[in-house]
Amino acid sequence: MWDVAEELKAMLVFAEHRYYGESLPFGANSFKDSRHLNFLTTEQALADFAQLIKYLKRTIPGAKNQPVIALGGSYGGMLAAWFRMKYPHLVVGALASSAPIWQFENMVPCGVFMKIVTTDFRNSGPNCSESIRRSWDAINRLTVKGTGLHWLSEALHLCTPLTKSQDVQHLKDWISETWVNLAMVDYPYESNFLQPLPAWPIKVVCQNLKNPNVSDTLLLQNIFQALNVYYNYSGQTKCLNISETATSSLGALGWSYQACTEMVMPFCSNGIDDMFEPHSWNFKEFSDDCFRQWGVRPRPSWIPTLYGGKNISSHTNIIFSNGELDPWSGGGVTKDITDTLLAIIIPEGAHHLDLRANNAFDPVTVLLARSLEVRHMKQWIKDFYASLRKMH
Amino acid sequence: MWDVAEELKAMLVFAEHRYYGESLPFGANSFKDSRHLNFLTTEQALADFAQLIKYLKRTIPGAKNQPVIALGGSYGGMLAAWFRMKYPHLVVGALASSAPIWQFENMVPCGVFMKIVTTDFRNSGPNCSESIRRSWDAINRLTVKGTGLHWLSEALHLCTPLTKSQDVQHLKDWISETWVNLAMVDYPYESNFLQPLPAWPIKVVCQNLKNPNVSDTLLLQNIFQALNVYYNYSGQTKCLNISETATSSLGALGWSYQACTEMVMPFCSNGIDDMFEPHSWNFKEFSDDCFRQWGVRPRPSWIPTLYGGKNISSHTNIIFSNGELDPWSGGGVTKDITDTLLAIIIPEGAHHLDLRANNAFDPVTVLLARSLEVRHMKQWIKDFYASLRKMH
Repeated sequence: MWDVAEELKAMLVFAEHRYYGESLPFGANSFKDSRHLNFLTTEQALADFAQLIKYLKRTIPGAKNQPVIALGGSYGGMLAAWFRMKYPHLVVGALASSAPIWQFENMVPCGVFMKIVTTDFRNSGPNCSESIRRSWDAINRLTVKGTGLHWLSEALHLCTPLTKSQDVQHLKDWISETWVNLAMVDYPYESNFLQPLPAWPIKVVCQNLKNPNVSDTLLLQNIFQALNVYYNYSGQTKCLNISETATSSLGALGWSYQACTEMVMPFCSNGIDDMFEPHSWNFKEFSDDCFRQWGVRPRPSWIPTLYGGKNISSHTNIIFSNGELDPWSGGGVTKDITDTLLAIIIPEGAHHLDLRANNAFDPVTVLLARSLEVRHMKQWIKDFYASLRKMH
Repeated sequence: MWDVAEELKAMLVFAEHRYYGESLPFGANSFKDSRHLNFLTTEQALADFAQLIKYLKRTIPGAKNQPVIALGGSYGGMLAAWFRMKYPHLVVGALASSAPIWQFENMVPCGVFMKIVTTDFRNSGPNCSESIRRSWDAINRLTVKGTGLHWLSEALHLCTPLTKSQDVQHLKDWISETWVNLAMVDYPYESNFLQPLPAWPIKVVCQNLKNPNVSDTLLLQNIFQALNVYYNYSGQTKCLNISETATSSLGALGWSYQACTEMVMPFCSNGIDDMFEPHSWNFKEFSDDCFRQWGVRPRPSWIPTLYGGKNISSHTNIIFSNGELDPWSGGGVTKDITDTLLAIIIPEGAHHLDLRANNAFDPVTVLLARSLEVRHMKQWIKDFYASLRKMH
């Protein structure tokens, strides 16, 4: 956005989503109970954006008759697309980058996400995904033995040693999430989104995972080296903390509530099409967890009902961009729907690479995507002024 | 709808709006306080319709892949239009009959409503609107005298006699509302919407109001005869009750709350362009009344922000029909906006005449309107099936 603002003579506005960052409607009580959380919905967030645009147009000199474009990445990309769908009178178009608007209900197979993660690892080094696939049973075999928990805690340099068998599941979940995160941030240059990382971090990870046919202990020592790429690129990390996978808070608490109400995204793995242990999507269990944590039950059909699911062709002027490396692209719009509901694919792109600042190491495919996006935005603006002239 | 259901092979579904009729989310407590009323919004009503359509499609054999059309009159017409705008994936089009979607904020002059009422009376008999215009001062002059309240209570056969000067304002408001209601239901045949009435009731009313140049007492005796057309067409009415203007409840309580929150419609009169006493639109006073009654403050900008105000051209497949006799047409869409956002005018039509059953006395203009409406509905259905075929 900064790179093209001047060219588009644009004002940049970053609206903070309610219940995130400093936008807490009830201050410290905002997450207290479901009564206080009741106003945390996508509809309310979109309504905030509508009010904000009206307010800015009313109060900023010269803003009144200017066209507005919605932009966002990931959940923000969904909101950008949905905002154009619900408030087409307020924004002339939307760029929805890496927006998995179809990662709901039965719109895409629940396994597509983990399959893409696996493909990233498979393509980043020989035997890489196979090494990871074998690591789960290595962990299982090692930890049935009494001394295994201790050995593994040492081998992985864990800050808090594993002490009971439930800790093993927790460890495996944390390792899985690490591979998932790496797939999201597999950028072509050094970056620091979820963690400080080298360029093409999965390639670096995979240099430690070239041989799956080794002993369980050696395989897990290799896994430690691989995890270190993600958790210790700085070289300053003393031990690995299995309760977190990202350095900065992206609002996990708010998201947990949203996932338990509207934003119900089914995920699964089968260990065949992907490198993870088999996990089916268990809605009942998910719902019970939500009820325990928040006192609410998820409504998995509501997002498709509200935003149209796959049936969105009556809308216009939305660009859905997706990086092929990004696991979220599995739930995204990756084919043109109409002349004005467009899909842009970035083969070498991870999670919303196109929205990141220009970089000397940008692959040509993201440069093409960005220039196409700007061309469409200019067209929306041109069409807006043409329709204004027609009205007068 | 009954008249064309068979021709369109349609199932008719009447969805009752939440907080009206028997659809009370908190039973007897639904109107208790603003906490219980908090779920009475147009957005929530539209969401109900969305859920209902999904439910019917899921549960009724054969309904699954059928196109749906939204129809409604008056407030229901607004909801039909807004439903197509917000849920275009659930309805292929909407017929919004007598839907004053622009009777908000500054979208139309606040006096347009009373001006149309006046035109109806002016065109229904010589000196008719002039007689009514003069009646207000006649009431004022009579009631400054001590005996005037008593005389007027007798002359108008009021059930409860006027006793204090505030009663006079109440009486005038009630008479005004009677003329307004007559303008809404000025149908070409006997009907019973707000009250049992003769055909072209304003013409009948105006037969009593041919001479404005008479004494105050005679003028008000004539006004009584005129009111009798509305309140005593049956001949059974013993006295006139100035606390009500319609026989059946149309949900006045729910509407009062909605008018005090989202549905803020500015009205005014000036006594020059209309036959009423001058009343300016006083938002402050209105807001204070709302606060007293419901503990809420109205948000007059929200409906235009949410539904686009006059800027709705990106939507498709909505017919806005309006009768020229209907005062609500002043806040309606009476000119085509695009090829698929169409206005139909019925010169001899009152409030949503086109949605009423066929009648031998229907003017030809409403027959034309209905056949045009059906033709467009058939086109929407055809387009729906064509797009289904294209997808497969």
